Amino acid sequence: MRVAVLFSGGKDSTYALYWALKEGFEVRYLVTMHSESEESYMYHVPNVHLTELQARAIEIPIVKGFTKGEKEREVEDLKRVLEGLKIDGIVAGALASQYQKERVERIAEELGIKLFVPFWKADPEEYMRTLILEGFDIVIVGVSAYGLDEKWLGRKIDKKALEELKVLNEKYKVHIAGEGGEFETFVRDAPFFKAKIVFDETEKIWDAYTGSGVLIVKKAHLEPKG
Amino acid sequence: MRVAVLFSGGKDSTYALYWALKEGFEVRYLVTMHSESEESYMYHVPNVHLTELQARAIEIPIVKGFTKGEKEREVEDLKRVLEGLKIDGIVAGALASQYQKERVERIAEELGIKLFVPFWKADPEEYMRTLILEGFDIVIVGVSAYGLDEKWLGRKIDKKALEELKVLNEKYKVHIAGEGGEFETFVRDAPFFKAKIVFDETEKIWDAYTGSGVLIVKKAHLEPKG
Repeated sequence: MRVAVLFSGGKDSTYALYWALKEGFEVRYLVTMHSESEESYMYHVPNVHLTELQARAIEIPIVKGFTKGEKEREVEDLKRVLEGLKIDGIVAGALASQYQKERVERIAEELGIKLFVPFWKADPEEYMRTLILEGFDIVIVGVSAYGLDEKWLGRKIDKKALEELKVLNEKYKVHIAGEGGEFETFVRDAPFFKAKIVFDETEKIWDAYTGSGVLIVKKAHLEPKG
Repeated sequence: MRVAVLFSGGKDSTYALYWALKEGFEVRYLVTMHSESEESYMYHVPNVHLTELQARAIEIPIVKGFTKGEKEREVEDLKRVLEGLKIDGIVAGALASQYQKERVERIAEELGIKLFVPFWKADPEEYMRTLILEGFDIVIVGVSAYGLDEKWLGRKIDKKALEELKVLNEKYKVHIAGEGGEFETFVRDAPFFKAKIVFDETEKIWDAYTGSGVLIVKKAHLEPKG
């Protein structure tokens, strides 16, 4: 089974990739779509290239496609990127977004290839616990939810963070795995990474008005694993 | 004719891409290989991601492969990246390197696809003149030749620069198109770019001992074309 993994660099797509490798799939390409609306046309180099660093750490070629970001156009653009690849299937990490899943299902059907969404409807807490136990080094690089403040930016998701997310889930309905867009993650290391990513310089950008923020990684590098 | 263009971001591969588009080829992917030797294992984000910015400006998906950089391994790694693509041919911009050409010929033959090297053995001066006339915005980002000093780093190749290169060619045998590795280029804009690249922050690194240097682009962004 030759597959491409839809890859954003966050915990879900990285874990789906790990699953595919453990299944014995031949992962030919990671595929990342960069979405740009007219408003976000200005595109600064340091902020968006981390998936390439991950691909390099994982040693699997990465395909980067570009889309103007309107929703239907995005599906067509992704389909176009995938249809040039000799693959039998695609693997996606989505956990709970029906909308995302339907879009990818449509593409797979139209291309006549299989779709794997291994952690569809997984239990969020158990899922997060597994990632931590398996040694995924997951960092929060974006937050957008009541209850998650600036201090969460750059924080590693460990057991303590998971306990706090559980409390926030009870108090404010923050999804434990961030599936509602409450937080975005980046994986710096995982058991199958050949090298790990080290952040050299980061900057927190916080919007007090909307109560949301991002961690910008200005400089990062790969380091051999001990 | 569905093709992939071997793309480094410099003048030759960018011009070969332009040629392929003018020929009416369907350019499905740009393909870039990143070579890393053990010594250059440390990999800093701002320095190496500019081809992605170009791909975004050109609006063609880019495939990035990784290789450990030993010469034979590199050929195998490139072949492996290409063999997963549904293409009928590859396009390369090499001008005069027999070694490079033979390697790519071997890959094309083994994959049973065509190879196009449109500017093979082109006259260097005429070739450079054409690029300037066609409106390519070419910047020198690396120099390594007697006669080329620090002032060449970041310099745009215009008619005046070309005249100076001709003088250096007569004096010191500097190849006018840099085919002997005398200088490396980066294309910020070309007629088929949908947006142009603007450098926001650069740094010159000069090694007086070897008489060579590079321009590091620390920050860059895309701008709509007027």
